[in-house]
Amino acid sequence: MAYFSVNGKKVYYETHGEGKPLILLNGIMMSTKSWTIFKETFSHQNRLILVDFLDQGQSDKVFEPYTQELQVEVVKGLIEELGYEKVNLLGISYGGEVALQFIVKYEHLVDRLVLFNTTYRTSPWLKDIGDAWNLSRGDAMDYYLTTIPVIYSPSFYNRNRAWMEARKKLLTDTVFSDKDFMDSMVRLTVSAENHDVREELKGIRTKTLIVSSEHDFVTPKEEQQELHRLLENSDYVLLPDTGHGSMYEQPALFTALTLGYVNAKDLSMSVL
Amino acid sequence: MAYFSVNGKKVYYETHGEGKPLILLNGIMMSTKSWTIFKETFSHQNRLILVDFLDQGQSDKVFEPYTQELQVEVVKGLIEELGYEKVNLLGISYGGEVALQFIVKYEHLVDRLVLFNTTYRTSPWLKDIGDAWNLSRGDAMDYYLTTIPVIYSPSFYNRNRAWMEARKKLLTDTVFSDKDFMDSMVRLTVSAENHDVREELKGIRTKTLIVSSEHDFVTPKEEQQELHRLLENSDYVLLPDTGHGSMYEQPALFTALTLGYVNAKDLSMSVL
Amino acid sequence: MAYFSVNGKKVYYETHGEGKPLILLNGIMMSTKSWTIFKETFSHQNRLILVDFLDQGQSDKVFEPYTQELQVEVVKGLIEELGYEKVNLLGISYGGEVALQFIVKYEHLVDRLVLFNTTYRTSPWLKDIGDAWNLSRGDAMDYYLTTIPVIYSPSFYNRNRAWMEARKKLLTDTVFSDKDFMDSMVRLTVSAENHDVREELKGIRTKTLIVSSEHDFVTPKEEQQELHRLLENSDYVLLPDTGHGSMYEQPALFTALTLGYVNAKDLSMSVL
Amino acid sequence: MAYFSVNGKKVYYETHGEGKPLILLNGIMMSTKSWTIFKETFSHQNRLILVDFLDQGQSDKVFEPYTQELQVEVVKGLIEELGYEKVNLLGISYGGEVALQFIVKYEHLVDRLVLFNTTYRTSPWLKDIGDAWNLSRGDAMDYYLTTIPVIYSPSFYNRNRAWMEARKKLLTDTVFSDKDFMDSMVRLTVSAENHDVREELKGIRTKTLIVSSEHDFVTPKEEQQELHRLLENSDYVLLPDTGHGSMYEQPALFTALTLGYVNAKDLSMSVL
Repeated sequence: MAYFSVNGKKVYYETHGEGKPLILLNGIMMSTKSWTIFKETFSHQNRLILVDFLDQGQSDKVFEPYTQELQVEVVKGLIEELGYEKVNLLGISYGGEVALQFIVKYEHLVDRLVLFNTTYRTSPWLKDIGDAWNLSRGDAMDYYLTTIPVIYSPSFYNRNRAWMEARKKLLTDTVFSDKDFMDSMVRLTVSAENHDVREELKGIRTKTLIVSSEHDFVTPKEEQQELHRLLENSDYVLLPDTGHGSMYEQPALFTALTLGYVNAKDLSMSVL
Repeated sequence: MAYFSVNGKKVYYETHGEGKPLILLNGIMMSTKSWTIFKETFSHQNRLILVDFLDQGQSDKVFEPYTQELQVEVVKGLIEELGYEKVNLLGISYGGEVALQFIVKYEHLVDRLVLFNTTYRTSPWLKDIGDAWNLSRGDAMDYYLTTIPVIYSPSFYNRNRAWMEARKKLLTDTVFSDKDFMDSMVRLTVSAENHDVREELKGIRTKTLIVSSEHDFVTPKEEQQELHRLLENSDYVLLPDTGHGSMYEQPALFTALTLGYVNAKDLSMSVL
Repeated sequence: MAYFSVNGKKVYYETHGEGKPLILLNGIMMSTKSWTIFKETFSHQNRLILVDFLDQGQSDKVFEPYTQELQVEVVKGLIEELGYEKVNLLGISYGGEVALQFIVKYEHLVDRLVLFNTTYRTSPWLKDIGDAWNLSRGDAMDYYLTTIPVIYSPSFYNRNRAWMEARKKLLTDTVFSDKDFMDSMVRLTVSAENHDVREELKGIRTKTLIVSSEHDFVTPKEEQQELHRLLENSDYVLLPDTGHGSMYEQPALFTALTLGYVNAKDLSMSVL
Repeated sequence: MAYFSVNGKKVYYETHGEGKPLILLNGIMMSTKSWTIFKETFSHQNRLILVDFLDQGQSDKVFEPYTQELQVEVVKGLIEELGYEKVNLLGISYGGEVALQFIVKYEHLVDRLVLFNTTYRTSPWLKDIGDAWNLSRGDAMDYYLTTIPVIYSPSFYNRNRAWMEARKKLLTDTVFSDKDFMDSMVRLTVSAENHDVREELKGIRTKTLIVSSEHDFVTPKEEQQELHRLLENSDYVLLPDTGHGSMYEQPALFTALTLGYVNAKDLSMSVL
């Protein structure tokens, strides 16, 4: 529970435990609070570092237009604040996009990278989906229905009715009815519009785990397959019967893959 | 270009060509006009029958609440109007749902059935997506962005930028700005909310072709696989790298599968 | 039931029905007799042309080494014998390879092409599998067990026990115990070893349907996906839960896809 | 490097490192020597325990007929020998089958279970493939070509020509030319013929990671999906573009998944 500054804006972060440092970069709707169920296990052998991007959680709002480059500097500032020479990064969706832009600019600061449900670019298709989200901002229920069903797999959404209904009530009653939150969501969404690192990934050699979900309707698995082709030292795995929100649908696989990849002494063994 | 009546409402239909009768049942946003590019080939060896469901195209509007059972009676009325003992049905999405309810009630009137991108039930997930569509009704661009990107595969949407942009302009300038059209769309969407034929399909033996698309974000392929398990005499095929709007993305496969399945003299050959 | 000559060798063929000509090119273990269950339906609207490649069925054996180029000339000779300017070709596996080599050399003679379970090249992996087949030639049961299970999907093989066991008895008692048949099989297998049309397919514009099977353990679906990328005017479809012998596992889809693709008046409709 | 006895037969095992115990159960052609490249990383935080099943590596041969139940007792004996109350088990293919039979009989001895490329039963299809292996026993090259290509993905086999050719030479010159080794292979293959734990898995609650490969031509992914349905507390993940020998094709994912799953403090976190 501490703050540091980037461009005069305060950034909130927390650290838990000791060991190899692992920074978790949030998806767009998330915050440091989203990691509650993972905190104990992720900090058992690692120094777990949670952070709110600008316009998220307890970090400052940013009222002028910005791109994800600003969040790249948040990550850079965080690593400096903590005094590390190298860290491990986990990014989810929006956070994964920031992570990709980060290694393009600051590859020397990253040991291993783990990406869940992350695309290498905001395609015209994804941009239009983001615009649909933003056009629904004025009505909490409209926003819920436009954004939430597509981030779960149909089977998870249909199986866990009580939980989804409770979440619908909670999100529409509070979070999506909060004008400040919604303004932040719109700015965050817009900040990702020009994300495209296809060209810049050439030559990047960071050991990277790419995880996609079979039923990801926001960042379809084909984009992670392309990312795998673009990133020379990457490994690629698929979560069957899972949607975009893989950390909630498959918490055991999310945990095992992340901790196993980050903590393995060596990952370069080969019979070849 | 003719009309008949169902429950005092006028239903518009067209027939083209001669041969085995093939009735096409429209998806929710479609109308008889949607079939222009297919008309010549589909009527080459068949009597092609196009029809507007109530609340579609040139058929009457229905201002009181209704369910898809009403559209089932439209299909029944059409077959009577044409004087057939048996017809072949092709249904797409909403039209496929009506087709499924139709064989449950009037199986004796159907020779072969072809279903593209059709689910056996409106799941809670799909209902919420429909609600998102309906809540966007007041803003043409919001409606476009909420409904259209998800009915194409990302690769089709991203590859054909000029066509998609022209379509965006056309739909937002005219169709989705037409209050009557939008009111119909909302009613049609609501009419499908209680669709669920899981139980009723037991014992149905109509020879049925089930076609799903790999990137169908509205009626995911798992639902067609389940439909294939439920429907004893069904065949199941998958269109790779295709979205919900398979007729537009894969017109050659749409044509070959439909005409081949409907017109083959026999489909029951087996080595077993 | 007639013969013509290629390089002094007699080639057996049959024709059935009248209409657009459709030549079926056999898989490696097949012959004109393999088409019994399809003959009536395939000749209903078409002139169906069955042919035994050299070293197959009732065509002559070839005792000197040869490549699939010889079979390309068989197809060429057949078209001349029948006096057609253009024909439609369907090829399965080995027959599909010959068909691909045929369009490279004689594209002007082909109207539409349908390929089931066909690869664009004999990869080192496939060559080694062919060598395994040939090394088992001396023992009918060894040959059966090495070649047959892998050409069916596990689910078909496990579900249809009585039929598979009867087939095992028949094939090991007679066909695979026939030294002449086995010698032919070895030569046919060897004749495909250098198949590779990757480079030659550039510029080929024949309208082509490519059908692959999800559980094809001989010509995996990735090879048909690559073929689809290589062949500009191709359409690609996948048969779920099906093995290499798709014509036997999915006779209705095999029939509908083939007849629909060959007989549709036009396949070039597009909204774009 | 030590031995213990089961039914009067000597079983060879090794332990490396300290920490949570992890026993690796070999695939059918493997031995303790197969783990060389993984030893350092797997023993970094764990006590890594390698063992040769009877008829493998440095353990005794078994000349009378036996089933995998004998190997279950090998695992039981090993745990007793080491004095553990609970261990973690990783099984690959044959070793995974033994692991499944082990938890049916001795669930109380297992903490977490990791299964790579493992089926819940030897289907008629798999039995026939095993028979093909055994009928090729007399000829080293025949055995190589019948068994080895199908345990790799085509893309791995085709991409790594030099390594595969070196392996072909090594295996045919030495291992597959060794009559004792081949006799063991045949007995091991036969010992798995009656493997079927479908019924016995009901009620098993061991936390289990099930990993399948997209191009597994020996234990197709559908069998792991079924295993996932049968095993209540299981998690399921897929390795794209990988064959049966996933540990060699995807060593980084093999390592991360195994160590992450075994070593995570908790895997039961859930938002539900």
